[in-house]
Amino acid sequence: MRVRLCAPSTPFTRDDALRVVALAADYPGVTLDFHPQCFAEQGHFAGSDPVRLAAFAECANDPACDAVWFARGGYGAVRIAQDAIAALGPAAHSKLYLGYSDAGTMLGGLYRAGIGRPVHAPMPADIRRDGGEVAVHRVLAWLAGDRSGEEPGIDHRPVVAFNLMTLAMLVGTPLLPDLAGHVVLLEEVAEYDYAVDRLLFHVTTALAPVGIAGIRLGRVSQVPENDRPFGMTVEAMVRDWCARLGIAWLGSADIGHDSANRIVPFGLAEPRSGE
Amino acid sequence: MRVRLCAPSTPFTRDDALRVVALAADYPGVTLDFHPQCFAEQGHFAGSDPVRLAAFAECANDPACDAVWFARGGYGAVRIAQDAIAALGPAAHSKLYLGYSDAGTMLGGLYRAGIGRPVHAPMPADIRRDGGEVAVHRVLAWLAGDRSGEEPGIDHRPVVAFNLMTLAMLVGTPLLPDLAGHVVLLEEVAEYDYAVDRLLFHVTTALAPVGIAGIRLGRVSQVPENDRPFGMTVEAMVRDWCARLGIAWLGSADIGHDSANRIVPFGLAEPRSGE
Repeated sequence: MRVRLCAPSTPFTRDDALRVVALAADYPGVTLDFHPQCFAEQGHFAGSDPVRLAAFAECANDPACDAVWFARGGYGAVRIAQDAIAALGPAAHSKLYLGYSDAGTMLGGLYRAGIGRPVHAPMPADIRRDGGEVAVHRVLAWLAGDRSGEEPGIDHRPVVAFNLMTLAMLVGTPLLPDLAGHVVLLEEVAEYDYAVDRLLFHVTTALAPVGIAGIRLGRVSQVPENDRPFGMTVEAMVRDWCARLGIAWLGSADIGHDSANRIVPFGLAEPRSGE
Repeated sequence: MRVRLCAPSTPFTRDDALRVVALAADYPGVTLDFHPQCFAEQGHFAGSDPVRLAAFAECANDPACDAVWFARGGYGAVRIAQDAIAALGPAAHSKLYLGYSDAGTMLGGLYRAGIGRPVHAPMPADIRRDGGEVAVHRVLAWLAGDRSGEEPGIDHRPVVAFNLMTLAMLVGTPLLPDLAGHVVLLEEVAEYDYAVDRLLFHVTTALAPVGIAGIRLGRVSQVPENDRPFGMTVEAMVRDWCARLGIAWLGSADIGHDSANRIVPFGLAEPRSGE
């Protein structure tokens, strides 16, 4: 399992990359190859749009690479996603693509294009969190064949997982995949309650006509304090919008911007051995 | 000119309403009637969804009312807008509707439905700003027939003005009006540079296929400081997204979350006397 890492949004650091590579020593079948673009900086981004696009295309089009792991989110993938996906050749199809948060933009676009297997998963940048090594180990173990880190509620229906803001920005654009029949897992971080409610309006209104199977809610963390309480929990907001739009509310999900964030391979689950 | 005021989003205060009514004494032809719902509070909102909806419908359906002026933005109009517009009868059509920011949700939905004349304009809540009385006077004078407070760049083409986040939440929903041929004025407040760029992706990608006449950029104010500079001005972002999507960049606009915020009646400008 040869894994190449690139950064379609914001930069990572060599020091943190070395810490992640050290953890990978426990998984002899897994090799990590950080593209130097991960450490490039231009303003907000991990290098200019062409630099980030070229690094992603190089990794995705590499026939000797089994998985592309996005190093970090932040913001920036929408600036390159459409052109990047258009630059992919046959070798890009037989590959895993792993990440979450802003990297969900890449996962969504790839899923729409039917290229490879997008996977909601922790990223190298999670090593900076309290207990973050656990999140990185979860992905390394999964890449080595241990599926215990997958989100436990995944059933027989196809599934996707997105940061709410990231998904909201994809609706109505050529990056939104067809989510008909899908269970949609959502999580959010560092948004006011009112902003979450506003995003839920946007996403549920856009997805209801598609015929999604339902919504499951991951963690909504680091909510800033507003000048007054919103008056409703996030779960109540999701239930309310689901009820208004005729979308099935399917309960909670074990994903979020934290070390416990579980793995969600997009699409239909592969049968587990013994099943 | 009988003006009724309601609050589809967040609450106003009686004290500030009295200050606005006092300013209106300079305009004998204009009477202001604040609906008590403006001062209701339920969590984040100026009363529950049904309470806000009923107050709006009462004002808009009142045959003795010439204009509905939204008292304040904040967040909340999307929770009632579709049902509220469905509740409007014939008397709602011969009316002005004034506001901006989150109230742009109501303006957008009304414009789509072809009901009355939506007008981007300062709101009573602007009286709390430094120099805010000027903004309130601008609207009162306009209601009394003085058009000098209108945005000076309005030309022969139909026009709309929106807060960027508000418009972004409307795209792909039944509240977005048909903006074909329109000059779209945008402004924003209190969003990070990266969030503005993200919203611009969303809005330009959604509006490009519609064939808008172009974009003009109002003020983007109170931008929070991020951990590193974004590396691009907001004007450069707008120019970049316009160039990518084939949308005409039409320069700056004199609107924003400030006391200088000018008035933009949606649609085609009425000929000025003498023209």
